[in-house]
Amino acid sequence: MKSYRKELWFETKTRRAFINITPQVEAALRESGIKEGLLLCNAMHITASVFINDDESGLHHDFETWLEKLAPEKPYEQYRHNGFEDNADAHLKRTIMGREVVVAVTNGQLDLGPWEQIFYGEFDGKRRKRVLIKIIGE
Amino acid sequence: MKSYRKELWFETKTRRAFINITPQVEAALRESGIKEGLLLCNAMHITASVFINDDESGLHHDFETWLEKLAPEKPYEQYRHNGFEDNADAHLKRTIMGREVVVAVTNGQLDLGPWEQIFYGEFDGKRRKRVLIKIIGE
Amino acid sequence: MKSYRKELWFETKTRRAFINITPQVEAALRESGIKEGLLLCNAMHITASVFINDDESGLHHDFETWLEKLAPEKPYEQYRHNGFEDNADAHLKRTIMGREVVVAVTNGQLDLGPWEQIFYGEFDGKRRKRVLIKIIGE
Repeated sequence: MKSYRKELWFETKTRRAFINITPQVEAALRESGIKEGLLLCNAMHITASVFINDDESGLHHDFETWLEKLAPEKPYEQYRHNGFEDNADAHLKRTIMGREVVVAVTNGQLDLGPWEQIFYGEFDGKRRKRVLIKIIGE
Repeated sequence: MKSYRKELWFETKTRRAFINITPQVEAALRESGIKEGLLLCNAMHITASVFINDDESGLHHDFETWLEKLAPEKPYEQYRHNGFEDNADAHLKRTIMGREVVVAVTNGQLDLGPWEQIFYGEFDGKRRKRVLIKIIGE
Repeated sequence: MKSYRKELWFETKTRRAFINITPQVEAALRESGIKEGLLLCNAMHITASVFINDDESGLHHDFETWLEKLAPEKPYEQYRHNGFEDNADAHLKRTIMGREVVVAVTNGQLDLGPWEQIFYGEFDGKRRKRVLIKIIGE
């Protein structure tokens, strides 16, 4: 069994952002040399997400509006977590979007459906944060 | 290390549906011959879901009502994604229900709790769509 | 390839509770002797959750309030699942929080970010329920 580990680092200019990281995940898989196995990709921070969906800007706008409706950023005082911090909404938004994805590796490729793309979802940005890629297989 | 891959295909007659796929996943596991490992089961489409919950029709009705409240299908114009498409709500509903499950394989069986059943959740049906099963182990 | 399996048992005194299980998961990993691989930790019950977030009591209070807003426990009659049962809300709350986490194992450690902690989320407690840990690797 082979295993491979890589971190991706991000620092977004806005509080919230969606970044398509499929090319970086594919590059990590090539570097690993693993042909058959499972790939885990997870946010290492609890106010960020890794998820799979469509790379379509209208949809990303809909996600932003929808998450603000389900877990609004303001007023900050509505959340007990917000004393020294102001990011309680980011913990909730990331919960909706998910921490991680597990993707099959087949013939050395990410075994994704036709429109599946892997995204980093940032909900409390403007600082350096990490994503972990771990691959096991042969 | 062994690995095994299978696709399941679906074409639901309704826009939304929940289908218990536990028997097909068990059949795939038997066919793989894998006794100890991890099984990934994921929707390959971004308007569908694979999730684990109870096979109880009242609960499925509750899921439908609840998802329509959290991410209503109509009016279509409320979503920017809906230009040529009308399925933005399906992307959001699938986000709530999740893309994938990872299930332990122990002694050649799906290592599920007493009421755990695996479902395909369709949110934009009436066309052919796929689920991926990938198993690694020994 | 090595594999390892362990169950953790819980019986909470309240209907809902969040329990930090990171120490038990770390102990299981040490016992397994696995140095590189993937660890699955999932609720075996469909009204409970395993998730990763911050060990901060204000945030846990926010989760409780937020989940009650998204999927209220009462009135029980609002859910069709609630005939002999009264736990439909617990099925919905667990859907938001997630069934499982997959964590990378690196150098014999849980490969977690600085604030990542693993929680058992109970939404229909006061009875014995289980979490499964399955680890594969080398």
